[in-house]
Amino acid sequence: MESRPETAAAVRGPRFAGAGRRGALLLALLFVAAAAFLPVAEPSCPRDNSVVKDINQMHQSNYGLEGLSHITVAGALAHGMKEVEVWLETVSAGKRTPIHRHSCEEVFVVLKGRGTLLLGSTSLPYPGTPQEIPFSQNSTFTVPVNDPHQVWNSDEHEDLQFLVIISRPPVKIFLYDDWSMPHTAAKLKFPFLWDEDCLAAPKDEL
Amino acid sequence: MESRPETAAAVRGPRFAGAGRRGALLLALLFVAAAAFLPVAEPSCPRDNSVVKDINQMHQSNYGLEGLSHITVAGALAHGMKEVEVWLETVSAGKRTPIHRHSCEEVFVVLKGRGTLLLGSTSLPYPGTPQEIPFSQNSTFTVPVNDPHQVWNSDEHEDLQFLVIISRPPVKIFLYDDWSMPHTAAKLKFPFLWDEDCLAAPKDEL
Repeated sequence: MESRPETAAAVRGPRFAGAGRRGALLLALLFVAAAAFLPVAEPSCPRDNSVVKDINQMHQSNYGLEGLSHITVAGALAHGMKEVEVWLETVSAGKRTPIHRHSCEEVFVVLKGRGTLLLGSTSLPYPGTPQEIPFSQNSTFTVPVNDPHQVWNSDEHEDLQFLVIISRPPVKIFLYDDWSMPHTAAKLKFPFLWDEDCLAAPKDEL
Repeated sequence: MESRPETAAAVRGPRFAGAGRRGALLLALLFVAAAAFLPVAEPSCPRDNSVVKDINQMHQSNYGLEGLSHITVAGALAHGMKEVEVWLETVSAGKRTPIHRHSCEEVFVVLKGRGTLLLGSTSLPYPGTPQEIPFSQNSTFTVPVNDPHQVWNSDEHEDLQFLVIISRPPVKIFLYDDWSMPHTAAKLKFPFLWDEDCLAAPKDEL
């Protein structure tokens, strides 16, 4: 989405405004008129309002996180969800999600593979040594609201695939560098990686 | 849960209270003491607070709906969820859910089989002839808040299996007898069948 305002600005901007020659002005007007009626390409925010969607055809990316594939199956920004959001995620053997927390409910349903849920403390001023809880195909688990956690594909060979359900979308994720980082130092990343293309980053207040 | 107060009442009730013989009184006291410390069997409200659960080991039932298997994977009443609830449902070939509506978001993720989503109108005073929208394995769809709908395993042979995610649990379902029943005549069934054992029906106001 960030490229969209820039394109619009380029069309309406100094390059065309106040051009001296009639032909150039006409061309500029035609261009502006065409830009107003033609759909604007949004290749990276996959909005789709069809009722039934094929998950295999939905946009997937690692969004810069090595070893991850993420699909927003039903999302606030892409599909207008207001109360729940559903993701399909695949994690390669040995890879981990970032250590993070969020102030929403989260349910995992494990479709393939096995892994380890690492759960930090909320009673200490930092997550501390996490609990390690193994899970496998057909497991389900919930992460308590605001608990720092990490999902690790602790298998050496097989992909780990799960559905994630969160409440209160879009997700507001606080990232930790490690388990000893104070909760107060964890950094809010909003919009999160897969929401960035659908929601421009908030501007600083004037 | 409804059977639990009855059992407790039987233990504390007239059968033991005020028994004349000392032996019977002692036995009754021992029985009451044991009942206070032993876990009370709750076969039909499967509360389970372990972090990771095996979905294959979770309580499943058709709850009186022929051709349905329902598992509450993460539930408000059984597991303390406040904002989202997740179900795993299997519908036999040819069977349908009741025609119903609910004032919450709902997402389906189809794991196996194929079927048809029937969607009624909210602009008419009754659902009317529903739209019929086919789906299959790996489909996802959402049902708009308050739209009357029915999920039909329209395949003749194969089971249909899907995950359902709802917001605002526990679900408040309004049931229609058919597609011509006025919206205002649809009947609230609360708690719904799978929540009945976990939440006693509300009492009439005095």
